[in-house]
Amino acid sequence: MSSGLVVALSGGVGGAKLALGLSRVLSADELLVVANTGDDFEHLGLSICPDIDTLTYVLAGLDNPVTGWGRRDETWSFMETITALGGEDWFRLGDRDLALHVERTKRLAAGHSLSQITGDVCRRLGVGPRVLPMSDDPVRTRVRSDDGWIDFQDYFVRQQCRPVVRQLAFTGVADARPQPEVMAALGGGRVRAVVICPSNPFISIEPILSVPGLRAAIENCGAPVVAVSPIVGGRAVKGPTAKMMQELGLAVSSATVAARYGDLLDGYVVDAAGSGDIKTKVHVAPTLMTTLEDREALARTVLTFAHSLT
Amino acid sequence: MSSGLVVALSGGVGGAKLALGLSRVLSADELLVVANTGDDFEHLGLSICPDIDTLTYVLAGLDNPVTGWGRRDETWSFMETITALGGEDWFRLGDRDLALHVERTKRLAAGHSLSQITGDVCRRLGVGPRVLPMSDDPVRTRVRSDDGWIDFQDYFVRQQCRPVVRQLAFTGVADARPQPEVMAALGGGRVRAVVICPSNPFISIEPILSVPGLRAAIENCGAPVVAVSPIVGGRAVKGPTAKMMQELGLAVSSATVAARYGDLLDGYVVDAAGSGDIKTKVHVAPTLMTTLEDREALARTVLTFAHSLT
Repeated sequence: MSSGLVVALSGGVGGAKLALGLSRVLSADELLVVANTGDDFEHLGLSICPDIDTLTYVLAGLDNPVTGWGRRDETWSFMETITALGGEDWFRLGDRDLALHVERTKRLAAGHSLSQITGDVCRRLGVGPRVLPMSDDPVRTRVRSDDGWIDFQDYFVRQQCRPVVRQLAFTGVADARPQPEVMAALGGGRVRAVVICPSNPFISIEPILSVPGLRAAIENCGAPVVAVSPIVGGRAVKGPTAKMMQELGLAVSSATVAARYGDLLDGYVVDAAGSGDIKTKVHVAPTLMTTLEDREALARTVLTFAHSLT
Repeated sequence: MSSGLVVALSGGVGGAKLALGLSRVLSADELLVVANTGDDFEHLGLSICPDIDTLTYVLAGLDNPVTGWGRRDETWSFMETITALGGEDWFRLGDRDLALHVERTKRLAAGHSLSQITGDVCRRLGVGPRVLPMSDDPVRTRVRSDDGWIDFQDYFVRQQCRPVVRQLAFTGVADARPQPEVMAALGGGRVRAVVICPSNPFISIEPILSVPGLRAAIENCGAPVVAVSPIVGGRAVKGPTAKMMQELGLAVSSATVAARYGDLLDGYVVDAAGSGDIKTKVHVAPTLMTTLEDREALARTVLTFAHSLT
C-alpha cells in the first residue's frame, strides 16, 4: 500500500470499530479520525461528546466491549448517588467516564478548544492517531418527531429512539468553522484515502459533511473517497439507522446510504448480501466486525480498494 | 428541658460531632444548624461546600468515620481518572460525594438557592433537622500568609495548613444577606438556646458571625448563647486551630476562643483541664467526643447548662 494520510470520518460505536482496524494497520501519523460532534450535549452541567469519547476509549483500548459505549472496568457510585439525590439519571455516566466530562467542561470554560482538549486526552490515554472534532464550534443534532423538535440525546437515549423521525437538523452547523488541522490535512496533498466509516449516515456522517467547506475539501483532496456501508444483510448492525430510513421513507439498503453520499464517493464497500443499485464502484467484502481480526481485515480491504481507485 | 428551637452554629468535622449529638437528643423540628460557607469553593468547575456537606453526611449517617470528611463506602474511580488525565487531584472527591457537587452546581446554575438545594439534599438523604447555609450569597475565606493572599482550600487542603497565617478575610461577607429562615427563626421568639459548636473560631464561626445582621439577631433572640471550646487539654482536637492561634500571636487556650466571641457568650463549656481566665459563666465537662455516646452526652450537657442560664 502507498504511504500518505488516511482521513476517516466517524460517528461512535460502528465507526470506531473500523477506526480501530485502521489504527492497527497504519502507523499513528498515517491516520486522522474526524469525529461527529452533532451528538454532543450538555447534561448535569457537563459537556459530553459521545462520539469523540467512544473513539478515544476504543483507540485507547479502554472501551466497554459489552455495552459498546463507556469504559471497561467502570464503577457506578456517582450514578447511584445522582439517583438517590433525585437527579437526572437517564444518561448513564460511569465514574471513570465522568472524569473526562468534568475535565473537558472545566477546560472549555477556561477557553481551551475541543480540539486541544481531545488531543491532550488522547495523548494522556495513549491514543496514537489524531482524533479531531469536525469543528470546535458547537453543532447540535435535533430530531423532529410527531411531537415536535427534540434534542438528539433526548431522542437517542432518554426515549431510546422510539419517536418517529420526520426530519433532522444540525443546529449551528451553518456557522461552524471546520476544524483547521482537518482542513490543513485535506489540503496538504498528502491524503491517500478518505474513509467514511460504517456509521449512521444521517446522524453521524451528514453532520460532518454539513460543516461549511469540509465536503468540498474532501472532494478536492485528490484522494479516493471510500465508504463502508453500515447495512449488513439488509439490516443495520446497531442503532436506529434502519428504523430511521424507514421513517424517512427510504429503502433500508446500502444503496440508500450510497445515494445519500452521492458524488462524493469514489468507491463503496458492501457486504455480500446487499449491493443493490449503486452509482459508484462497489467492492463486496465482509463488513460485519465482530473480532479484532475482522476490524483489521476490513481496514486492509478498504485501503487496498481505495488504492485501486487512484 | 424546655421546648423550643436550638440554633447551632457549626463548621465541619468538630462542629458536626456536636450537631449529631444535638440531633439525637432533640426532635428534628427542635434543631436548626447554621453552616459556615466561607470554606466553599469552585473546583473542577464544581461548587463545593465542605462544611454543609460534612454536616449533611454526618447527620445522614453517611460520613466516613476514618477520614472525618467525605462519605463512607466511597469509591475513587473518578479521582483516579482525573489523575490519569493530568487534572487537578489535590482535593479528593469520591465518586458518591461528587454526585452532590455536580447536582448542586447544576441547580445553582439553574437559579436555585444554596438553601433550597441543601434542604432538598437533606430530605433525600434522610436528614431530620434543618441545615441551612449562613447566607445564600457567596462568602469566601481567604488567608494571608507570608507569600500573600490565597484561597482557603489552597491553604487548608492543597498546602495542608503549612503557610503561616497572618490575617484572614471573608470576601463577600459585607454584601452577604443572612439566610432568611435563620433570621426568621432567631426573631421568632421560640429559640431556647444558641449553641456555638466546637469548631475553629477563626475560620468556621467568625464567618457566620460576620454576616451582617446575624450576630445581632443572635444577641437579640432572647435565648442563652453557649459555646463549646474546641480546645481540649490545651490542644485543638483536630485541624489548624492551635497552629493558627500561635501564628496570630494568641495563647492556645479556651480563654482565647471565649475572648474571640466576647459579649456574645452567656455560657461556655470547657474540658476539665483548660478553663483559664474567661469572662463568662463556665461549665466544666468532658468535651472530647470520641463515641456516639460522647456526642449525645455533650449535647445534653450543653442544653442543660443553657437552660440553667435562662
